[in-house]
Order: sequence, then structure tokens, then C-alpha cells
Amino acid sequence: MTRDQLFTTIKEKASFLCTGLDTDPQKIPHHLLREQDPVFAFNKAIIDATIDYTVAYKPNLAFYEVLGARGWESLQRTLEYIPDGIFTIADAKRGDIGNTSELYARAFFEQLNVDAVTVAPYMGSDSVRPFLTFQDKWVILLALTSNKGSADFQNLELGDGSGKLYEKVIEKTSEWAGPEQMMYVVGATRADMLKQIRQLIPDYFLLVPGVGAQGGSLEEVAMNGMNDKCGLLVNSSRGILYASSGKDFAVAAGKAARTLQEDMKKYLDLYLNSD
Amino acid sequence: MTRDQLFTTIKEKASFLCTGLDTDPQKIPHHLLREQDPVFAFNKAIIDATIDYTVAYKPNLAFYEVLGARGWESLQRTLEYIPDGIFTIADAKRGDIGNTSELYARAFFEQLNVDAVTVAPYMGSDSVRPFLTFQDKWVILLALTSNKGSADFQNLELGDGSGKLYEKVIEKTSEWAGPEQMMYVVGATRADMLKQIRQLIPDYFLLVPGVGAQGGSLEEVAMNGMNDKCGLLVNSSRGILYASSGKDFAVAAGKAARTLQEDMKKYLDLYLNSD
Repeated sequence: MTRDQLFTTIKEKASFLCTGLDTDPQKIPHHLLREQDPVFAFNKAIIDATIDYTVAYKPNLAFYEVLGARGWESLQRTLEYIPDGIFTIADAKRGDIGNTSELYARAFFEQLNVDAVTVAPYMGSDSVRPFLTFQDKWVILLALTSNKGSADFQNLELGDGSGKLYEKVIEKTSEWAGPEQMMYVVGATRADMLKQIRQLIPDYFLLVPGVGAQGGSLEEVAMNGMNDKCGLLVNSSRGILYASSGKDFAVAAGKAARTLQEDMKKYLDLYLNSD
Repeated sequence: MTRDQLFTTIKEKASFLCTGLDTDPQKIPHHLLREQDPVFAFNKAIIDATIDYTVAYKPNLAFYEVLGARGWESLQRTLEYIPDGIFTIADAKRGDIGNTSELYARAFFEQLNVDAVTVAPYMGSDSVRPFLTFQDKWVILLALTSNKGSADFQNLELGDGSGKLYEKVIEKTSEWAGPEQMMYVVGATRADMLKQIRQLIPDYFLLVPGVGAQGGSLEEVAMNGMNDKCGLLVNSSRGILYASSGKDFAVAAGKAARTLQEDMKKYLDLYLNSD
């Protein structure tokens, strides 16, 4: 999917919601466990209930790998079920030496046919570049994550006075690909840093996790992060998936997604230049 | 597996060879493609041919994920085939927020039942710690990798005069777990840095990739990296797996592994204090 196509979907749906399909087998409502593929049955119901409010779905690979080959099949079924025109993200946080990253890229872009994959920067350029050779496919690079541990290394000050490690990561990796091919993960719990990151990379999309269950403020994210093509995908996982643990889980998920979308519409109206 | 058990195996086999099962479906000898599971058939023949010279096997996940669910099954079969007493490493380079890393840990330590998993440090302590709660299971942390891109971030000088990023990573993460639970990936193409890393963490095992096809020198690695429990696992993948592309691939792989083991025996005799 191209950036313009993504932006068009965002405007049509008045939403920049990414629904995280972090489907924990232990949290699937009881009555679905009778299904042949409970994880897919759950995801299918969630997708049906949220698709009007969602521009992107983001399964995190860990939730599928914990089930082995069976989990990989559930993931594949889920991705096949998501209609064209919806942006799909494999949240895999991969990164390896060149020839190996190339295989990961083929696993995600060809085997699973997602639009984007999250990539960790630690191993440097030749670990990232193999993901950038696929037409209309995206790298979403970890810059500043929303967890406590992000302080351990991402926030370290560098010696050449060039700022913190995550700033250097953004600065350097944005030389490898433009905003048509690269996005950045920026934790919403650091909305104060969003503004400054937005100055560093005015045109890139930011994938913002941590709104909702992790307590980030959508208003702050929209105010500090939005650009003239929206430039934001804000993720919610648990807040949508587990809005109810009963038979009404899908209805509750739809409601939770709609509430977020209505908020997002407000901020799109407020901050997006309509032209 | 405990560190003592690993050391015992190293002494018994007079080897610290790790065979990397980076089985590229496109490089499997033609006659194996008739098998129901060509990847497993290849791995089985490689394991049979190399097991006398090998103390550890390290499949890289990318090579299996590129085949989807089928690849995961080949991986599972391969790991089940490796006898007890051999150290197994899932080279996965994972790392995610806490609850997600916990699922990855279960995927590797319970589902696949490997002894160790490689983990990327970028997301910090709460992305690594969930892997450290399993009895006799290991984290092998990326410190200094063997690829060119390692210069992009791992070699950056930090502002507090505490050295380079990879040194900080070693220093900080070694506070999270001792040498009974943690190892480090240290690229052999930087054998000059091995000595200094060995001073930082005298007791930890180092997993050294890049000997062989990538051109590192075993002698330098042994001289600079060995400690009184050997403290080294040196990996070779392509040099063993693809020693021949014909029907004699397994015989050739065995020979390549034996050549490395014979060299390793020499260095064990030379540098290991026998007591």
C-alpha cells in the first residue's frame, strides 16, 4: 500500500486507529474454544466488529508463535481474512544480518503478504535494508518504545553531542528510506517527546502504541504528532480485544473501537488541514 | 542445560563448535526435494554427520519462517531429533515489551524446548527479563554483531565517557543475569575487541558467529576469548551445511565440522587450564 492510499483510507474512515491483534489464547472467551481454530474465530469476530473504525491491523507475532505451527496458520488465516485496502502490520521486531533479514522480509511480505513489518535497529543498515527492496511495502522502525526499559539504552546520551540514541536512530535510518517506505514506532507514553520527534521527521508516519491500556493520551498524541497527511497510526490492543470477556466480546470491541474513532475524527477535524 | 553440563560436553567432545542450521530451502541438494519434509531430511543428515564434533546446534528462525507453518514444523522436527545433552539455540533475535517477551520465551523454551534464545537489547530490561525466569534456560544477548551495520549504532561512543554502546549493553545487561543464564553474541570479525570484552565479562560464554564463511580467525578467537570453562561457542553455518551441494553433502559437512573440531581441540589443549 502507498502512503497516499493509506491517507485516503484515513480520510474516508475519519480514523487513524490500528487494532492490535494480540490474541492471547488464554483470554479468548470460553465459548470459542469449541471452534476448530479459536484464535482465528476470535480474530474474525474482532475484525468484523471493528473494521468500520480501523485503518490498520497489527498482529504481534509472539501471540502466534507461542502456539507453534498451528499459531502460524491462525495468523495466515487472519491476514487472508482482512480485506484489501486495510493496512496490515506484522509486529515482529525482527533484524538480522543481511541474507537472514532478506528471508524475514520474504516471510512477511511474500508468505504472509503484510504491508509492513516492525524492525529493530540494533544491527544497523544491512539488517534493515533488505526489508526496503519490496514495492509498496514498509519498514516500521523501533525508535522510542513505550516500555519502561526504553530508558536503558534508547535514552542514552551520545558522545558527539548529537542527542540521545533514539534520535540518532531516527536521524540515521531516515537516510535509508523516505516517508513512502519507512515509519517509526514512538511510544505514546512519551507524548512530550513526540513534538520534537515530529520536528526531526516531519513527513514520516509514526506508529504509536500505548494509547488506552498503557495510558497514553490520544489528545496529546494528535496535537503533537499529526502532520498534513495525518502521519499517525495509533494502536490499541487490549482495550479493544478484551473490552468484554463474555459472549458480547465482539460488540464490546466494536464499541471500544468506535469510541476511539470518534475521538480521532475530532482531532482530524481539528488538526488536519483540509484542502 | 547448566553451564557445568555444557562445559562437560565441551571437554568430552574436545570441541566448542556450534553448527548453525541455517537451512536455505533453495540450497538443499536436489535429490532431497522428493522427501516429504526436505528441510528436516537435510537437517537430519547434517546432524547425523556432525554430531560427534558439535556441542550446539543453532537454527536461525528466518530460514524456517520463510516457509510459514510448514517451516515451523520442520524446525520442531529438527529440534526433537537433536539428542539430549546437546545445547540448542533458537537464533531468533527477539525482544518486545514485557508481556510479549514472555510469550516469545514460552514459544522457544516450552513450545520448541530449546536451551537458549538470542535476544536483542534495544528495548531494555523488561524486554529481556521475561526470558530469564526459566530454569536452566539461557538468554544469548546481542552485544557486538559480525555484520558491517554493527558500526551504525553498536559502536557509537556514549556521552558519559563510559565507552561504546555495545560495552554499555554488556555492562548493564550483565547486571540482570549471571554467567549461568546469560551469554553474549560477539562477532568474530572483531577479534581485536574480544580481548577487551573478555575483560569486561570474564566468566560469561560468548557465542561467536562469523568464523568460516565470514572470515574470522579461530585462532584469534580462542586466544582472546577462552576462559577457564572454555567460555566460547564458535558457530559455523554455511561452511558446514554447503561444504558440498551434491549427494555427498552430509559426508562433506561431517568433514568440515571435524576439521573445525580438530582445530578447536588444539586450542583447548593450549589455552584451557586442565585440572
